[in-house]
Amino acid sequence: MITNNFIFQNTTKIYFGNEQLVYLPQEVKKYGNRVLLTYGGGSIKRTGLYDKILKVLIEAGLTVFEFGGIEPNPRHTTVNQGVKICIEKDIDVLLAVGGGSTIDCTKIIAAARYYKGDSWDLIIHKAEIKKAMPLLTVLTLAATGSEMDNAAVISNVETKQKIGLLHPLLQPTASFLDPENTYTVNSFQTAAGSADIMAHIFDVCYFNRYPKMDMLDKVMEAVLKTVVKYAPIAVKIPDDYEARSNLMWASSWALNGFLQGGPRQMTTCHAMEHELSAFYDITHGLGLAIIIPRWMEYILDNQTAKDIKKFGVNVFGLSADTTDMNGAKSAIQRLKKFFYEELGLQSRLSDLGIDCRNFSIMAEKACRGDKIMGYRDLTPKDVEKIFEMCL
Amino acid sequence: MITNNFIFQNTTKIYFGNEQLVYLPQEVKKYGNRVLLTYGGGSIKRTGLYDKILKVLIEAGLTVFEFGGIEPNPRHTTVNQGVKICIEKDIDVLLAVGGGSTIDCTKIIAAARYYKGDSWDLIIHKAEIKKAMPLLTVLTLAATGSEMDNAAVISNVETKQKIGLLHPLLQPTASFLDPENTYTVNSFQTAAGSADIMAHIFDVCYFNRYPKMDMLDKVMEAVLKTVVKYAPIAVKIPDDYEARSNLMWASSWALNGFLQGGPRQMTTCHAMEHELSAFYDITHGLGLAIIIPRWMEYILDNQTAKDIKKFGVNVFGLSADTTDMNGAKSAIQRLKKFFYEELGLQSRLSDLGIDCRNFSIMAEKACRGDKIMGYRDLTPKDVEKIFEMCL
Repeated sequence: MITNNFIFQNTTKIYFGNEQLVYLPQEVKKYGNRVLLTYGGGSIKRTGLYDKILKVLIEAGLTVFEFGGIEPNPRHTTVNQGVKICIEKDIDVLLAVGGGSTIDCTKIIAAARYYKGDSWDLIIHKAEIKKAMPLLTVLTLAATGSEMDNAAVISNVETKQKIGLLHPLLQPTASFLDPENTYTVNSFQTAAGSADIMAHIFDVCYFNRYPKMDMLDKVMEAVLKTVVKYAPIAVKIPDDYEARSNLMWASSWALNGFLQGGPRQMTTCHAMEHELSAFYDITHGLGLAIIIPRWMEYILDNQTAKDIKKFGVNVFGLSADTTDMNGAKSAIQRLKKFFYEELGLQSRLSDLGIDCRNFSIMAEKACRGDKIMGYRDLTPKDVEKIFEMCL
Repeated sequence: MITNNFIFQNTTKIYFGNEQLVYLPQEVKKYGNRVLLTYGGGSIKRTGLYDKILKVLIEAGLTVFEFGGIEPNPRHTTVNQGVKICIEKDIDVLLAVGGGSTIDCTKIIAAARYYKGDSWDLIIHKAEIKKAMPLLTVLTLAATGSEMDNAAVISNVETKQKIGLLHPLLQPTASFLDPENTYTVNSFQTAAGSADIMAHIFDVCYFNRYPKMDMLDKVMEAVLKTVVKYAPIAVKIPDDYEARSNLMWASSWALNGFLQGGPRQMTTCHAMEHELSAFYDITHGLGLAIIIPRWMEYILDNQTAKDIKKFGVNVFGLSADTTDMNGAKSAIQRLKKFFYEELGLQSRLSDLGIDCRNFSIMAEKACRGDKIMGYRDLTPKDVEKIFEMCL
């Protein structure tokens, strides 16, 4: 008997839709009056979102401080800077406005605020998270799911490490998801974000060595189909509300814990991609889109063919009337067409100027001295070969 | 532009799977040491669940009181009795062990504990819920979703009213979902519970006059397909863990707020059925299974045919290659076959000894002096005709 026991809880309050910022002050005031607005490279100033949020907060009588310039693949040194401001300004609550990088960085600021040492200690479990500041988010990119999960990924440029951390105290208390805030996301980032959403579903549970609950399998396919339907629309028509809203809600649900339900999380493709972006600082979703189809090709055998074919049939609507192996091959080809033609993403690492010189060390790092445990376990040699297939 | 704004939050912590009761004492102890165990007709004593829970609680040093005998379609007078015990015994936390009736009743006990008057006042909004006791649940029937929502339905036998109430303070803090606890649910209750799950999806959002988010539409179909696949298995093989676990998690998700996402909740079939069970005390899910296909037939027109056909195609796998009207008719026939043949539920009110004598007054009550607002608005005359079609 397969039991798939699990514990599920997701406490984040979601304000979904446009014109929901009216609820922002009341969410802030639950925790105090001094709020630190964190953001990335400043796109929120160009789009007017920064002004809009500031206006709402100031009109409500709140005291707003800010910490901008959080980089993609955010660094522990940036976290440390944010912590300094929280202490100096006696901040009550954090408000991250941005995508996964800004939110992830702010999550660790929230936790490191109550830790006296270097924030990197928390990431590598040298120290334990015991307390965290309350965190609100305003999402501007449908991709990582960070707005509704308790995970954060932080990079250390000195050690070339990019590591994810999960902790209940990292869960945002409330997130504001306005699809209109993603209208200005360009085609490339929209495509990369969509690949990231799909990768979360693949990695979290869809391709899993352990038996899954059938309901969740069907729901995962429903969310994957949503991305397949709406990502190409959003890439072409950036202000299509229907497409943006479906992608936005799909991004949250791909990684909020519900789809997992039981089996241990597999993170094969993410583990490999984290080395790519740690070494070359490339866009995470692009790295995933390059890796995933090659990973599928590499692990394709008589056992995996059945699952990969099922993915093609149920998500892309391919014919079921073929052998598992041929169905799986068609599914992989269809996925490549989706990523590289319909979404217009680059298909090879060599297109990004990446060559094989670091593959061996990257593969070792991805396996952390052991193997990547997953749908199929991968040794450093396996990972190196998959990187080579991506060239 | 269609925006579908909504607020979503669901804080209940779910312990899913067998052998999870080991976590029960720590959940209780968050709130105190004096726990009131509430339950229904005593089936939990026959199955051994009562002893199992008592053992876990007592070994953890907790003081356990009990309140059994909560009836199906629980009454406000029963709520009042429960409140009395809470006060007399200075209870810290409630533990409802049962299905929707036990959990619903206990939810209102939790709220009425802090109200000095008759609990019925809370149901009819004569008084407002301001505080509630913490509530844990151990689910024994996959049906109502009460284990993961903030709703409760209470009956008043004097006034022949059955009314649902929603309030954030009615949300269980934690629920224990062990599919094995539903092994002893008989074929009839399994079938009726499964009809209830489907009805929640139909009523909450699937058949809706307002545009829905496509992702949620796809997810609703995934959950409906899950019920269609597993309910007949559970009816035949009561200890099939896979079937029981899929139905159990489907029951929670059909009504936990996620599937709704935007459009106002429609409760057409529930509104009609509540009159049936208020007048005749019949099993809620059975009443729904009798009503739903007749309601579909009654509202079938050129507009609704498209949605009903889509349901048949995407949930039952019927051919899409036909007109909307023929597709819709096939879908309704297929649903009847599912309810009355595959699940073995009775198909007519006359089978239950119900005649038309109260239909007129029931229809008036269902419309509460106005109309049932829904996918199609229904006047008392419409409702009466639908009841007649059920004879």
